[in-house]
Amino acid sequence: MSEPMHVVALAGGVGGARLALGLARTLPPGALTVIVNTGDDFELYGLHISPDLDTVTYTLAGLVNPDPGWGLAGDTFACLEMIGRYGEDTWFRLGDRDMATHILRTAALRRGETLTEITARLAAALGVRTKILPMTDDPVATMIITANGEKLEFQDYFVRRRWQPVVRSVVYEGAEVARLPKTVQEAVKSANAIVIAPSNPILSIDPILAVPGMRELIADADVPRIAVSPIVGGKAIKGPAAKLMREMGMEPAPAAIAAHYNGLIDGLVFDIEDEGEKENIEASGISTLVTDTIMRTDEDKIRLAAEILDWIGGIRE
Amino acid sequence: MSEPMHVVALAGGVGGARLALGLARTLPPGALTVIVNTGDDFELYGLHISPDLDTVTYTLAGLVNPDPGWGLAGDTFACLEMIGRYGEDTWFRLGDRDMATHILRTAALRRGETLTEITARLAAALGVRTKILPMTDDPVATMIITANGEKLEFQDYFVRRRWQPVVRSVVYEGAEVARLPKTVQEAVKSANAIVIAPSNPILSIDPILAVPGMRELIADADVPRIAVSPIVGGKAIKGPAAKLMREMGMEPAPAAIAAHYNGLIDGLVFDIEDEGEKENIEASGISTLVTDTIMRTDEDKIRLAAEILDWIGGIRE
Repeated sequence: MSEPMHVVALAGGVGGARLALGLARTLPPGALTVIVNTGDDFELYGLHISPDLDTVTYTLAGLVNPDPGWGLAGDTFACLEMIGRYGEDTWFRLGDRDMATHILRTAALRRGETLTEITARLAAALGVRTKILPMTDDPVATMIITANGEKLEFQDYFVRRRWQPVVRSVVYEGAEVARLPKTVQEAVKSANAIVIAPSNPILSIDPILAVPGMRELIADADVPRIAVSPIVGGKAIKGPAAKLMREMGMEPAPAAIAAHYNGLIDGLVFDIEDEGEKENIEASGISTLVTDTIMRTDEDKIRLAAEILDWIGGIRE
Repeated sequence: MSEPMHVVALAGGVGGARLALGLARTLPPGALTVIVNTGDDFELYGLHISPDLDTVTYTLAGLVNPDPGWGLAGDTFACLEMIGRYGEDTWFRLGDRDMATHILRTAALRRGETLTEITARLAAALGVRTKILPMTDDPVATMIITANGEKLEFQDYFVRRRWQPVVRSVVYEGAEVARLPKTVQEAVKSANAIVIAPSNPILSIDPILAVPGMRELIADADVPRIAVSPIVGGKAIKGPAAKLMREMGMEPAPAAIAAHYNGLIDGLVFDIEDEGEKENIEASGISTLVTDTIMRTDEDKIRLAAEILDWIGGIRE
């Protein structure tokens, strides 16, 4: 098989967006579709915020703030400061230009547009040619159950409490009745390869898999399906993945990622730092690509994406 | 009668806000209530914008952009630029900090708060001690019928077309079923003096008077009631008042202002440039205060307000 013509990636925020950029720059224009987690979506100041959709869109538009990897580069915070002056909490850092996205998305939703339609329109206006698809147009809320039984909204756990609470379990409220959009179904069905990005498996990828029909579509797909491990040397590249896996009884290591995606992947990409796990993982019938998975520069992203695309073709041959 | 303890002012945007500032700085704290036009309110990007309420609030908070007299001083436009990048019209100049007001107002309205409640909360957060009351909590839309029969929304006429279309008539859609808030009724009933600010009579004051019950409340009020002419030397101090009066068959002059408010005022304040009209206006039973009515600096506003308050006490003695 030659280089795949249509790659579908499943992604959350920063890590997923970084690999998506690499794939978009490596594949021909229009050959990539990214299916994005919306379980982190929430309402703030009456605005509908879709953090992962925005991170993927801004990244692919070349507008993202490189550090921390979300928000718009060079954005200012005058609006948020004024919101603070009015006495509101301002722990979620929304920039002025970022605010435009939330304002227009909210207005469009109220007019009856779907999140899928709005996302496509906003991304197109920013010159993005990759298809960015929300996992569903229905509300799904990732909720965190802490060790002491508290139930926290995702952003409360993730941003306000800086993922410090110990997690007992994670639930995806609304997922059981959420509908998988036709666009997502068609994308997965027409894919020549499926890539699960190095996003948090529990917080970013599992919500996508929780939308009824999604897991089955991937399980049944007769194309190479691979995941990229977000864990390197027992640590998350970014965010709470390692801490969370440990709290939920999983060892933070590529083998646990492979086990977590059991039945959904044919191959796993993981870091040379974890080379020792290669044999063990391959023994479970999973192909492996061991390489440098840290994506700092755009060159890193493109290099990793190109390696993955090269390797993918051989997985099921 | 000594200095009135409770003054009620009727106001539109810039001119009304300027006199309100003068009155607020001259009267004891809390002795002023401003009833503000909401006929210019409109929705943009899904946000509820109340231009006159904001102009009055920002002015009284000492935050207004002195030139042009609306918006926030030193505001930036990053959000609006991004909205433009998304392909939306950006002819209405909303600043980043200003946007905070619209976002929080819209969120509160959707939660079921009244415009009266929200306005009070936002003004209090900015340290304003003057009561600022919307003329109604119900939707009223000032619509412009042009000479060639077009019907324009207010901001389309006023901002986008820079009040260039010739006006045949003005209607206040929704006014006939709008309810006068209890707060407004109580303010007018408890007033020791009523001041109609130098706002556009047709575009800013008449919408307030069009709310059922308002005109009667003022007509029946047994306290000094005065207006300040927004016309000086045949021209409007700011905006389209003179042009509009002419187009609607009124001569732009203090006498026409006095006639327009017939039955509602006992006195008229107008500029020394129009001193020649004094006799004529007094012959119609209206007291006059002829003075410098141009308010450039805060000192001008305070001086004019103090003169008016001094003079008001003697009007019905």
